[in-house]
Amino acid sequence: MAQQERAKRTRQVILEAAGIVFDECGYEAATISQILARAEVTRGALYFHFSSKEDLARGVLDMAVTTDGVLPQQFKLQELADTSLLLAHRMPREPLLRAALRLSVDQRARKLFGTKWPEWITVGAELLTEAKARGELLSHVDPYETSRFLVGAWTGVQLIAEEVPHTRGDALVHEISLMYQMLLPNIAVPAVLARLDVAPDRPLRLFEAVRPDEGGEGDPAGA
Amino acid sequence: MAQQERAKRTRQVILEAAGIVFDECGYEAATISQILARAEVTRGALYFHFSSKEDLARGVLDMAVTTDGVLPQQFKLQELADTSLLLAHRMPREPLLRAALRLSVDQRARKLFGTKWPEWITVGAELLTEAKARGELLSHVDPYETSRFLVGAWTGVQLIAEEVPHTRGDALVHEISLMYQMLLPNIAVPAVLARLDVAPDRPLRLFEAVRPDEGGEGDPAGA
Repeated sequence: MAQQERAKRTRQVILEAAGIVFDECGYEAATISQILARAEVTRGALYFHFSSKEDLARGVLDMAVTTDGVLPQQFKLQELADTSLLLAHRMPREPLLRAALRLSVDQRARKLFGTKWPEWITVGAELLTEAKARGELLSHVDPYETSRFLVGAWTGVQLIAEEVPHTRGDALVHEISLMYQMLLPNIAVPAVLARLDVAPDRPLRLFEAVRPDEGGEGDPAGA
Repeated sequence: MAQQERAKRTRQVILEAAGIVFDECGYEAATISQILARAEVTRGALYFHFSSKEDLARGVLDMAVTTDGVLPQQFKLQELADTSLLLAHRMPREPLLRAALRLSVDQRARKLFGTKWPEWITVGAELLTEAKARGELLSHVDPYETSRFLVGAWTGVQLIAEEVPHTRGDALVHEISLMYQMLLPNIAVPAVLARLDVAPDRPLRLFEAVRPDEGGEGDPAGA
């Protein structure tokens, strides 16, 4: 049992190292040796868990569809916004998530591994379908189309936030907050709209509620 | 004069060939030889216009911020929507535009050449500032923030439309039309909103008005 636990931790360490290297160098340029050096594990340990660089990339992508930190809420629309905001909060802090996005955006890596966009669209469409059944949505809203747009907009906003200089430290979460402020009035019925919280500091508050030990960490990595 | 005209045409032919090769292979893998073969020009002609592959990439990027086909309209918001819709219409048809977007999204190429996103944001922010001065915008709308969001959302929607299967032939222009349908109610004052046209077939109608000779072309390349 302790051995299983250790193997699981090693696997996670290797994936995180792969995330850092893919994020810094891109998939093509990344080498197993760099990942070994970063993970500080033996070549044998790495090949016990992953058979190749391709396999590592798939492992990184599999970690990326995550709703960690999202708690059940009165409104499904709040859970949807929380999912987006939490990811925006985590992305500058977690190389694994950045690497997964970078693999999705890279045309060559995308051909090899596909992307997680269809899974993200499904996550959003399911929340919106439930929101619709509960009467939270304006009648014209199509859950699937709306989710596909949200996933696309989120991805593009992230790319631009990386590139275009911002005065704010935590640019991405502010941009995603703004995105919801712009979109929700045309998605939510007014009574629900008035009670949704899409403030940029919401993810930090959610994380503090779930992981009190990590809430007090210093400056965000992306600052 | 005829010679100047010929040189200009040759330059354009080379840029379009470079666009096709960058679009198909990505910047890293593309070679000058492939571009020569595609352009059907001599090595001398290519080096007369462009000193290197880097120089070609810069030339491709410079062609990409284009408002071709946008006509003056009663509302500046209409011109903004037209700019986005026309680009969505042209992207599946013009490898040069796809190559420019691909260069912007590619993290390594981006480090070398930067992106045209800041220029696009400026184009949008200027139109929105004028729209605001004319009373077309709801009072809370910030032209720069809104433009930055539109450029990000446009880029991400394009990436997803490439990847996620659609039943429609001309997916991108439908997605961008949908994006404006979702956003404009929270941007435009009602009297203007009611008179804006963001239908997916609007760019085709605009192009037919500007270039009647090209209006009748067959199926879109992206179909």
